[in-house]
Amino acid sequence: MKMQQTIAIVGGGRMGRALTDALSAAGVRVTGPHGRGFAGADVDAVLLCVPDGQIAAAAAAVARGPLVGHCSGATGLDALAPHEAFALHPLMTITHRGGDFRDAGAAVAGSSDRALALATELARALGMRPFEIADEDRAAYHAGAAMASNFLVALESAAQRVAGVDRELLAPLIRAAVETWVAEGDAALTGPIARGDEETVARHREAIAEQAPELLALYEVLAEATREVAARAGSEGAEVPA
Amino acid sequence: MKMQQTIAIVGGGRMGRALTDALSAAGVRVTGPHGRGFAGADVDAVLLCVPDGQIAAAAAAVARGPLVGHCSGATGLDALAPHEAFALHPLMTITHRGGDFRDAGAAVAGSSDRALALATELARALGMRPFEIADEDRAAYHAGAAMASNFLVALESAAQRVAGVDRELLAPLIRAAVETWVAEGDAALTGPIARGDEETVARHREAIAEQAPELLALYEVLAEATREVAARAGSEGAEVPA
Repeated sequence: MKMQQTIAIVGGGRMGRALTDALSAAGVRVTGPHGRGFAGADVDAVLLCVPDGQIAAAAAAVARGPLVGHCSGATGLDALAPHEAFALHPLMTITHRGGDFRDAGAAVAGSSDRALALATELARALGMRPFEIADEDRAAYHAGAAMASNFLVALESAAQRVAGVDRELLAPLIRAAVETWVAEGDAALTGPIARGDEETVARHREAIAEQAPELLALYEVLAEATREVAARAGSEGAEVPA
Repeated sequence: MKMQQTIAIVGGGRMGRALTDALSAAGVRVTGPHGRGFAGADVDAVLLCVPDGQIAAAAAAVARGPLVGHCSGATGLDALAPHEAFALHPLMTITHRGGDFRDAGAAVAGSSDRALALATELARALGMRPFEIADEDRAAYHAGAAMASNFLVALESAAQRVAGVDRELLAPLIRAAVETWVAEGDAALTGPIARGDEETVARHREAIAEQAPELLALYEVLAEATREVAARAGSEGAEVPA
């Protein structure tokens, strides 16, 4: 890593600690995590790792001079005005055990070429794959990311209760579904809905109505979404010569 | 593999071909895949890998003598009467590219000790982890398995459209969510709903209402399920001394 700038991290939560550790391990000159009143003296850039609602106040505490960035998924650069601003949102879940940034995507943005270049350089230093997201697309981008990961936890939790088997036994099935989806998209769909086996689908619905009626609305809305995936996959398949 | 029995596979679909190949590779004496009128002469067991609706007819075509099994997730052993019956349902998705049975769960059942032992032995020969599912629990078991894998494809397809980024960029995030869920269950939940950040949740909902209104019902039902996971994870956490 050839970065000459010194980066200060503000915010001692999961993200602040994980980024401080990872940047330091990558050979970046990093200080922190600092508290939320940090004024940014003697550093080239300040990266705010604070809750979305506290970004504007933390940015206001920084003296004019250094570049100021945030790692929020849904927040625009305007929350950092009037600083020269950047954003770096790791597309990764950070748990109490930390997170592995390597190979993850990173949504980057900058209010100047120099600010965007810094966000991109920091992402690359961590082994992440940077991509630009415009301010007006950030809310949808972050909503999709939350659906992909947080809703997955809710779905698998519900599925496991219905199936009545240990998470460890479901794990290889779930991993295989993820990998075929990553490789093939909608064409990855298998199972009774993809096969048009409506008799089995009706038995599933009945079993849920009997044993977990509180999950019936979730079942039905996802069964409908699955039918739409099957229809799309089928019409794509139809374009391939038989 | 010390199995002395000869197993005949009936049904040339994905599952029949994958099981024939995998059993043969595991050193099991296997014949087939045979057509659906196969009478079971000269074999010790017949394993039907046919659609659920065709199991009874395929079983009726088999002469009395060999054990008869199916690999349906949702079907009971009664569909195989009056044969001495077994069931072996790999908890794994089999795509057009095949499937990897190793380490996957396998739901087994048998109408006799000998039949259950055969199902268990076949599962172990393939490197699977056998567990028993009673007939009355099979519909719920299979519904949960379909939710865990097929609904995951529908969820990730929707999430990716909302996020507007390539599947490859979402993949590390999704894999991390799966692995933390497998390790920790409900406690794996992160994100704005887990943090109680209702302002961000409201912005997500707004973004979806604007850009993908057809996904709003799916968003709301899964946001509610995610809130319930957060509440369960929180109340579990509360039992740990501070």
